[in-house]
Amino acid sequence: MDLHLILDGSGSLQSQLLRALRAAIVAGRMAGSSALPSTRRLAHALGVSRNTVLLVYEQLTAEGYIRPRQGAGSYVEPVAALRTRPAGAVAARAAPRVSNYANRMSEPHAAADASEGLRFDLGTGVAAVAPALASAWRRALIRAADDTAFDYPPAAGLHQLQRALAGYLARRRGIEADPGNILIVTGIQQGIDLAARILLDPGDLAAVEEPGYGGLRHSLRAHGADVVLVDVDAEGLRVDALQRRPSARLVAVTPSHQFPSGAEMSLARRAALLEWAERHQAYVLEDDYDGEFRHGRRPLPALKSLDRSERVIYLGSLSRALFPAVRLGYLVVPAALRDYFIRAKRLADRGSPAIEQRALADLIDSGRFERLLLATARRLDERRTALIDAITEFFGDNASVTGGSAGMHLCLHFSDVYASQEAQLIAAAADAEVRIEGMNGYHERPPDRLAVLLSYAQSTPQELREAVRRLAQVVRDLRS
Amino acid sequence: MDLHLILDGSGSLQSQLLRALRAAIVAGRMAGSSALPSTRRLAHALGVSRNTVLLVYEQLTAEGYIRPRQGAGSYVEPVAALRTRPAGAVAARAAPRVSNYANRMSEPHAAADASEGLRFDLGTGVAAVAPALASAWRRALIRAADDTAFDYPPAAGLHQLQRALAGYLARRRGIEADPGNILIVTGIQQGIDLAARILLDPGDLAAVEEPGYGGLRHSLRAHGADVVLVDVDAEGLRVDALQRRPSARLVAVTPSHQFPSGAEMSLARRAALLEWAERHQAYVLEDDYDGEFRHGRRPLPALKSLDRSERVIYLGSLSRALFPAVRLGYLVVPAALRDYFIRAKRLADRGSPAIEQRALADLIDSGRFERLLLATARRLDERRTALIDAITEFFGDNASVTGGSAGMHLCLHFSDVYASQEAQLIAAAADAEVRIEGMNGYHERPPDRLAVLLSYAQSTPQELREAVRRLAQVVRDLRS
Repeated sequence: MDLHLILDGSGSLQSQLLRALRAAIVAGRMAGSSALPSTRRLAHALGVSRNTVLLVYEQLTAEGYIRPRQGAGSYVEPVAALRTRPAGAVAARAAPRVSNYANRMSEPHAAADASEGLRFDLGTGVAAVAPALASAWRRALIRAADDTAFDYPPAAGLHQLQRALAGYLARRRGIEADPGNILIVTGIQQGIDLAARILLDPGDLAAVEEPGYGGLRHSLRAHGADVVLVDVDAEGLRVDALQRRPSARLVAVTPSHQFPSGAEMSLARRAALLEWAERHQAYVLEDDYDGEFRHGRRPLPALKSLDRSERVIYLGSLSRALFPAVRLGYLVVPAALRDYFIRAKRLADRGSPAIEQRALADLIDSGRFERLLLATARRLDERRTALIDAITEFFGDNASVTGGSAGMHLCLHFSDVYASQEAQLIAAAADAEVRIEGMNGYHERPPDRLAVLLSYAQSTPQELREAVRRLAQVVRDLRS
Repeated sequence: MDLHLILDGSGSLQSQLLRALRAAIVAGRMAGSSALPSTRRLAHALGVSRNTVLLVYEQLTAEGYIRPRQGAGSYVEPVAALRTRPAGAVAARAAPRVSNYANRMSEPHAAADASEGLRFDLGTGVAAVAPALASAWRRALIRAADDTAFDYPPAAGLHQLQRALAGYLARRRGIEADPGNILIVTGIQQGIDLAARILLDPGDLAAVEEPGYGGLRHSLRAHGADVVLVDVDAEGLRVDALQRRPSARLVAVTPSHQFPSGAEMSLARRAALLEWAERHQAYVLEDDYDGEFRHGRRPLPALKSLDRSERVIYLGSLSRALFPAVRLGYLVVPAALRDYFIRAKRLADRGSPAIEQRALADLIDSGRFERLLLATARRLDERRTALIDAITEFFGDNASVTGGSAGMHLCLHFSDVYASQEAQLIAAAADAEVRIEGMNGYHERPPDRLAVLLSYAQSTPQELREAVRRLAQVVRDLRS
């Protein structure tokens, strides 16, 4: 038989020969029942020892691809000639049949990544990690790698981390939680996904903030929810607008620092929202985005701290307190939903990585986590002040700031630039080496006037001033 | 006013006082519009400086809980008296309204944990990590913590890891995969969940192996699938039984070492399964459980290596090659499904932890991962041989072994003990300090005769021999 074997040069000659023969059989280049070359002939042709070929034939026999016949060499098993379809023929075929869930999925809003790598990066969602924090996390990780059990962690999370978070939440977020009601997840997005699984059926109403986070809306819609957009003003979600939606099962909010507008939900609104949820037996999904960083004073307690009728599912993230690559988050869930959440987490991924959970628990228990938060808050406050000063200096009355009381970014609003000019402004800013992000992508009801998000997390006060100077020039050019 | 403040002793006096006042207001112990004690009086009563009380009142004012009146002290905001409902009243209420998904969830089979901590642990699912592997993983993790970017990793996984796995899969599992079609997930269970989301609607037929892994069945059922049980024999899944289920959308198999029976799917069955899937445009979910460890010879290539018509979704795990606490797994998906899987992963949790991904990529690229696998395989082979020898020695013809050709466990079948005696046998074995696991929990159609799973991963040859000696005595006692 005429046999062309392609040895790929990776690994021992024996394993190359094994792979090449297997591939030839599977691809149908050696028909079923055809004879293989004798081990002696093949060894000679390839310049390898006969023993090598013998071992390969033995392996192929054990795998069922070939069969030795007494005294008559080896033959390809008929069943092994599996397919003669050329690879690649499949790709051109019709779209696969997928589920309703798959068909409902759509792409979350992606920030304009074309302008990454610019000298002045004021984009949101970029990790700005202080060296002290990075090295503290590394040390915690190394220590945890020595101490953590190798078995499956409990689906709800390591007990030590549940207890550590209960203490942290009581001290810093005003939440008195039973550690057993704290569930460790792989980031906020998984918290949203689990809540949607447990609470929503296709067709159920779920209310979200407008403007708001794309990953939330896309998740709810993929689960089949009918997503209702509720406007946000300076006091946060317009709870009065909810009154017209008594049948909503779930309302998702970011009360500490509304994303992306930056509004802090007032106490009156918080009370009204809880009252609404209790009256309608609905649940509130509180994403405590930026709850760790309130400037000029202590952070406002979480909405969950007011939740005496167990309607709030609290989502905490480490993406801002540490950094996004960590992929840890946590939920505080009402006791009545606890077992549902643990079951759903077990079915979703059987538990989050144990070593990183242990590292976080150690970091909190040692007090270092909160000291690092305070250091970050001080750094952010200084940068925020520099940014606002620069805006006042270079924009004067031509722009206004909202959302500067907490977190890592604020919104800059232009009364005399239209939202339709966003792409133009971002491109012109990029030409001036400044990366900014527009608000349009977070709106489904297009706004009239232009607003942009400016993050002050990853730039020094001097860089922020220069970036704003350049941005003001860009806006002047755009106006004229 | 008569005010009882409970200071909890955690943190500074200032933060204790802040929390105590907030709690009193929220709990309704201070009615709306009532006056707070003057800062001077409260400072005196508590023995703290007046400045501390002033700062607390300022913070509460900023939070909206109280309002200062010019020259007349501070008053509780009416809205702040949120609830007078006593905490705990909620717990007794009716069950919450949850989704159909939530109602379909049930608990995966839990192994008998009562017998944990016994001297001879032959239970499956226990991590048995060689010191060399543990230290290699720690070193990789430490290096990765220094090198990994802090931002969100790509939802599909780090490119470096996708490339490293493509090389590993080609060398060790016979799979030629485009790195772009490899998706990093948080363990096998997440791979199952994503596949179910993308491929199954409620009411769709999905076929699974009987006996089989509970986490799979529970996931499919929670997604609303109509789960069909297909028997397994010595050659793996009875593909002929599938012919009566032409409408199944998905068939899930463990071809390398069927869990839990240990059967290795024959090449003829593999070919028949792929043919069936292509004919019915169904997908095969290949969980390559124990594919790394085949004893006495090289591992059989994965089913995916034969998949020329793109019907196989391959699931690989690190739970056996490394250990379960790592929580990393990977999928090789058909090109036509790739974007669906990436979107679903983004919606599920936005990506798996970056540092562990980086550590694994480094471990594979350095060649160390495969050397560790070989060392583990040698160790397992030695232990398996000791276990089988001991079974022959102590049981003779009274029991038979299946599933010993691969992986970390085998099945021991008793022809003259009934399956109904399982609990009795496990308890008696535990009394003899031997932990074993029965097969009943993996069957939905109860078997007639008793079979138990014996893991040889975590015991030395000497321990295995002693455990089997004790087990044989236990079985003798049970028979008489």
